[in-house]
Amino acid sequence: MKKVVLAYSGGLDTTYCALHLTKDLGYEVHAVIVNTGGFSKEELAAVEARANTLGVASFHILEVLDTYYEEVIKYLVFGNVLKNATYPLSVSAERILQAKSLAEYAKSIGAKAVAHGSTGAGNDQVRFDMIFQTIVPDIEIITPIRDLKLSRQEEIEYLKKHGVSMNFEKAAYSINKGIWGTSVGGKETLTSSDFLPEEAWPTQVTENEAREIKLTFVQGELKGVNGETFENPVNAIQKVQALAGPYGIGRDIHVGDTIIGIKGRVGFEAAAPIIIIKGHQLLEKHTLTKWQMFWKNQLSEFYGNHLHEGHYLDPVMRNLEAFLADTQKFVTGDVRVLLQPYRFTLLGITSDHDLMSSKFGSYGEMNKGYTGEDVKGFTRILGNQTAIFHKVNSDD
Amino acid sequence: MKKVVLAYSGGLDTTYCALHLTKDLGYEVHAVIVNTGGFSKEELAAVEARANTLGVASFHILEVLDTYYEEVIKYLVFGNVLKNATYPLSVSAERILQAKSLAEYAKSIGAKAVAHGSTGAGNDQVRFDMIFQTIVPDIEIITPIRDLKLSRQEEIEYLKKHGVSMNFEKAAYSINKGIWGTSVGGKETLTSSDFLPEEAWPTQVTENEAREIKLTFVQGELKGVNGETFENPVNAIQKVQALAGPYGIGRDIHVGDTIIGIKGRVGFEAAAPIIIIKGHQLLEKHTLTKWQMFWKNQLSEFYGNHLHEGHYLDPVMRNLEAFLADTQKFVTGDVRVLLQPYRFTLLGITSDHDLMSSKFGSYGEMNKGYTGEDVKGFTRILGNQTAIFHKVNSDD
Amino acid sequence: MKKVVLAYSGGLDTTYCALHLTKDLGYEVHAVIVNTGGFSKEELAAVEARANTLGVASFHILEVLDTYYEEVIKYLVFGNVLKNATYPLSVSAERILQAKSLAEYAKSIGAKAVAHGSTGAGNDQVRFDMIFQTIVPDIEIITPIRDLKLSRQEEIEYLKKHGVSMNFEKAAYSINKGIWGTSVGGKETLTSSDFLPEEAWPTQVTENEAREIKLTFVQGELKGVNGETFENPVNAIQKVQALAGPYGIGRDIHVGDTIIGIKGRVGFEAAAPIIIIKGHQLLEKHTLTKWQMFWKNQLSEFYGNHLHEGHYLDPVMRNLEAFLADTQKFVTGDVRVLLQPYRFTLLGITSDHDLMSSKFGSYGEMNKGYTGEDVKGFTRILGNQTAIFHKVNSDD
Amino acid sequence: MKKVVLAYSGGLDTTYCALHLTKDLGYEVHAVIVNTGGFSKEELAAVEARANTLGVASFHILEVLDTYYEEVIKYLVFGNVLKNATYPLSVSAERILQAKSLAEYAKSIGAKAVAHGSTGAGNDQVRFDMIFQTIVPDIEIITPIRDLKLSRQEEIEYLKKHGVSMNFEKAAYSINKGIWGTSVGGKETLTSSDFLPEEAWPTQVTENEAREIKLTFVQGELKGVNGETFENPVNAIQKVQALAGPYGIGRDIHVGDTIIGIKGRVGFEAAAPIIIIKGHQLLEKHTLTKWQMFWKNQLSEFYGNHLHEGHYLDPVMRNLEAFLADTQKFVTGDVRVLLQPYRFTLLGITSDHDLMSSKFGSYGEMNKGYTGEDVKGFTRILGNQTAIFHKVNSDD
Repeated sequence: MKKVVLAYSGGLDTTYCALHLTKDLGYEVHAVIVNTGGFSKEELAAVEARANTLGVASFHILEVLDTYYEEVIKYLVFGNVLKNATYPLSVSAERILQAKSLAEYAKSIGAKAVAHGSTGAGNDQVRFDMIFQTIVPDIEIITPIRDLKLSRQEEIEYLKKHGVSMNFEKAAYSINKGIWGTSVGGKETLTSSDFLPEEAWPTQVTENEAREIKLTFVQGELKGVNGETFENPVNAIQKVQALAGPYGIGRDIHVGDTIIGIKGRVGFEAAAPIIIIKGHQLLEKHTLTKWQMFWKNQLSEFYGNHLHEGHYLDPVMRNLEAFLADTQKFVTGDVRVLLQPYRFTLLGITSDHDLMSSKFGSYGEMNKGYTGEDVKGFTRILGNQTAIFHKVNSDD
Repeated sequence: MKKVVLAYSGGLDTTYCALHLTKDLGYEVHAVIVNTGGFSKEELAAVEARANTLGVASFHILEVLDTYYEEVIKYLVFGNVLKNATYPLSVSAERILQAKSLAEYAKSIGAKAVAHGSTGAGNDQVRFDMIFQTIVPDIEIITPIRDLKLSRQEEIEYLKKHGVSMNFEKAAYSINKGIWGTSVGGKETLTSSDFLPEEAWPTQVTENEAREIKLTFVQGELKGVNGETFENPVNAIQKVQALAGPYGIGRDIHVGDTIIGIKGRVGFEAAAPIIIIKGHQLLEKHTLTKWQMFWKNQLSEFYGNHLHEGHYLDPVMRNLEAFLADTQKFVTGDVRVLLQPYRFTLLGITSDHDLMSSKFGSYGEMNKGYTGEDVKGFTRILGNQTAIFHKVNSDD
Repeated sequence: MKKVVLAYSGGLDTTYCALHLTKDLGYEVHAVIVNTGGFSKEELAAVEARANTLGVASFHILEVLDTYYEEVIKYLVFGNVLKNATYPLSVSAERILQAKSLAEYAKSIGAKAVAHGSTGAGNDQVRFDMIFQTIVPDIEIITPIRDLKLSRQEEIEYLKKHGVSMNFEKAAYSINKGIWGTSVGGKETLTSSDFLPEEAWPTQVTENEAREIKLTFVQGELKGVNGETFENPVNAIQKVQALAGPYGIGRDIHVGDTIIGIKGRVGFEAAAPIIIIKGHQLLEKHTLTKWQMFWKNQLSEFYGNHLHEGHYLDPVMRNLEAFLADTQKFVTGDVRVLLQPYRFTLLGITSDHDLMSSKFGSYGEMNKGYTGEDVKGFTRILGNQTAIFHKVNSDD
Repeated sequence: MKKVVLAYSGGLDTTYCALHLTKDLGYEVHAVIVNTGGFSKEELAAVEARANTLGVASFHILEVLDTYYEEVIKYLVFGNVLKNATYPLSVSAERILQAKSLAEYAKSIGAKAVAHGSTGAGNDQVRFDMIFQTIVPDIEIITPIRDLKLSRQEEIEYLKKHGVSMNFEKAAYSINKGIWGTSVGGKETLTSSDFLPEEAWPTQVTENEAREIKLTFVQGELKGVNGETFENPVNAIQKVQALAGPYGIGRDIHVGDTIIGIKGRVGFEAAAPIIIIKGHQLLEKHTLTKWQMFWKNQLSEFYGNHLHEGHYLDPVMRNLEAFLADTQKFVTGDVRVLLQPYRFTLLGITSDHDLMSSKFGSYGEMNKGYTGEDVKGFTRILGNQTAIFHKVNSDD
């Protein structure tokens, strides 16, 4: 029997796929869930239980949080990547790693096919297919929901017919949770004009007291929170999320270009990602030179877009990562952050690599190391070409 | 007697300059203040009164707010310019226009020199000199404070000796106010680690009730607020400031590279600039294509940096403005903004040019205009090169 | 009967299409050839004669050379566009304008469909389809060769069966000629390692005497050759081609990414485009500032790539054109070019807008306008940040 | 006695400096010449002999060719750096390494000062000073010619007075030779309109027979020529120069922005650099993906400019080098080059990493791996946003 690896989440679409692949197409289905930090042990156990009722040949959990951090999140922090100046790529980044993990798993068990539950309407199908066709080019990609153009109702009827009992009610808001943020879609995000209501947010605000926290970065990576050291930045991120999440920090709506050319809108809450990126960026303002920051910004924007659109395996991404990693050599220091309900303030930083060190002059005070005469000469030369341009081209 | 145009603000440094130029250097001093929206009528009257006690030949107010908007601010909005992702260039943008206005005024009255009160320590000297040497290359630039390396105390003694009576006490926080924001410097901003205290902010928080406002943009320019139409965007900006300022919105600390190579830190409050830029940017996310946004971001970052560093007269700035202006053709629509103490939320937009129009498919739902098969073909081709790359270069 | 506009070139593929659309699909076929400077009157007459034997409802020649210059070539010169530092986009640029002209013509006669003879293998299908689906989104696109996956032999048999007599022999080299260059494909270009032989080049070398010519640019446009003024730059381009073509100048092989992800290789000869672009670029080196050149280069590369890939109607292209046009204000002057067999040398320029004017100092000689002291100050400040960086981060 | 390290070339300016520093300023002068491939053993011996007549404390030759390659040239090849699309940075690149080597030498011998013979008119003073102030910030920089504003005649008289006999005649063309090219300045390059005459070129044309050579690159580095393997790319470069130089290949005039804002013009001959860069670039067209090439071009242009302007020690340069090096992983293969008098032709390449491999489809032929239907879907989605844009914003 031909093996298929199915990206299984326990939801309606992938439950349909599991059954359809087994019963209708005669596959030996290996259901796999890739955990990028969004599933608790209880949730995973429930997913497994469901899978086992569907007659799959095996159920496997790929715990990839460390890889996710090492291969993706790390660079999103290095690059301060916020798509359209807003969105930490919570979902798109994790899809990439899920697809990659699935492809490698499929290869490892000698599967002849991979299947996913994407419809023909969104970005995920592109991300999954693009990664699959590169890593496992000889394996078939099966997408029942997209190919059969199934409606929700048709899927439900099929499952009921086969005796599957699960909660078929559609949630008012569809949620996707991972370590790098939780997305929230609902009726408001289908239009351009409305914001999500308070009750739509998965994390409700339960903290009201202002609280200062300290983030410690070592060469661009978050390695400490409030003085506690974390060998694994994954744990530091989780710590920040635990502290800041209950303040309702990092909520917003992302509006952007989907890979397939239409505009899309999705809510997200991402306390830790937003605070970490902004804190990291502040530390960079103190430790990097002007042109390091300029080129980091230009390249990171492309990096984020290209990742978002599924081009993770384009070798240019490795080249850009080499650049980003190289910039982080001295991005080491502490960042003070004040948490308050719905907002945070970056109070300041301390770093041995702070280029603002008063040893070299304080802005607005008389400086060491150069004189007013130096600045006069500097300005005369710096403006030389523009002055010549205007002389040559004046109408006088 | 040789005429000198003095950039006069009524402060200690320029008061010293007025007297020194007249008494010691024998100039006919024409004191000029350039108002970019930071001075009230009362303040200007006080400055004039002071000037007249110093024996200047004339005192002149250049009211340049409309020019400031038309030649600078407009493009900062088009480009969503926030230096280092934070600072609306409140001070740097206005210095440029002040220098340009002064140079043109000096030319118009046949002055032989221009003078400014800059020290040898900051950015302003570069901006002033660079603009002057381009617009009035044959006029001498005089900078007594920089050249004589005067301390505050020396200036005070000189003024006292000449019978000038004014408040010689140094304010705890130095403030620079203009329509595009107010800067705040003090002992905290001389270090890297501390934030400004509540009392340092010129605008205290007096509004506590959440309030929704509506911004109307026409081809990228703010032309309406809450349904009221403003022919002159300057008035619309002032309206937004009046509404949002009392919420304490738009406060932050800018950390960045000075022109002279050291890092500097300055607080600012800029409710209207921040809200307008972010609202404008959201409208662009709905109305521009992906590559329009990409290139706008790349170019605007350079535009902001180059302006900040005094290169306003480099002809590349006009070329970039031509680009930016051309992108605004369809950036027309309303933006809903919720004001709350210390923060604001962009609720959504409505626009006839919204590319998210559901006529062309809603993200995440089955779409009109293309099929799942199309997307499969799309993905196969889109990922073709990367797939080939990995085949050619795999170790298998 | 439903009207179809067929892009007709008189070749095998489009001859097949004309017959197939008429006989098999029952369309009223309006055959259209778009002349972008590659067809002589005699050739067009021959194409028309052939078309008329195929029973088409009408035959129409769209003479678009002026439009082609005004909407495309002009910007390729402004941007010095040479894809991959080599190729003037001879074919891709002209396909865009052909598609656009066809779409507008189809609209004007109320056609229900447009047809082109592209196979499923190349770039042209993408360019045609993308332009069509944007300009005439409600019109059907018909591509018989692609859809029926026809081989050359099958087409020939079909045509013979229907009594069409034409030269069915395949030329050793396929040629595409237009005002912006002639492409040459053959067995050598299907591999990576071989160059085209001398006999493959459509224009053989007949000039052996070195000859100096003078190009006159006015605001970036070629308006004169050897002192003769041309109102229409199209004629100036043709003049340069007439002079330089017989020297065998501008031959090379372009290697690049096709839109569909594979690498392609094609020979071209383009004497006038290469000389004009290089001459224009030299004039810019003398008349533009450093940052004008930097950004022109960065943006032009994208512009050329995006055009090449068929994205001409993306509004970002208009924005980039606004930028490019704005940079040309002072790109006016004469360029001296020496023509020799297989090569040319840019001898020098003269321009009223030359920023190298010795009035402002000659490089390497003692300069007017600034002193060695100025340069010392300049250098001290210019290198300030890097010096601080190394002090802060040294291991000492 | 205080030690000074003098950058000594044996020419008029540095001979003056040697004497002046010893006799007038009382320094212990350590004369150092940095050889970046431009001096033969005989020339170095002559320079040493001259130095010893001037009473210097020591004379030292820094042989830095390998370092020069490893720290600079390698990246110029990786980046295909040709400033303004023309100039391989023959002189500017070598000045950087000379300054760096001098600074490190000065540090190693505990010198209190470094001296160079730059005038106040050119770029070199900036490059030297900027490197010195970063590497040896506490050491004084002495520039007698610049500071004393000496004319050539004054220097000659001073030397004669002190009994120095050397050839004081000024050469018609000033030459600067190094492994990465030879610059040529003369009366023609002081104007904008004239080219250098045949006799000005240091290498006269002595080869007339066409000859094919083969360059072998390994991960972007030239490691073989005509089948001969070179462990050290320096030797491979010298081999190419020996083969191609006598053809008069790689001659041109560079026009560009000096660091001090004026435009400058300088002739150069650089057969090996031009052939190697163009050959390397061709190999990249076959082995890199589209976006690798795009970003390499954008970054390399900045890298070249920043290096040219003396910013070699800005850490962003190391970051860019990390990027460039990472792109070279598969830039391995052979390039066939045809040498002819005054020109060369890139015939083609062979590489195991060639993405044009016919295994994945040949351009213009029916392809493996995807169908015409795929391309139709691809195009529909690819053009989706532009089509939507035009629908939303059409006037219809």
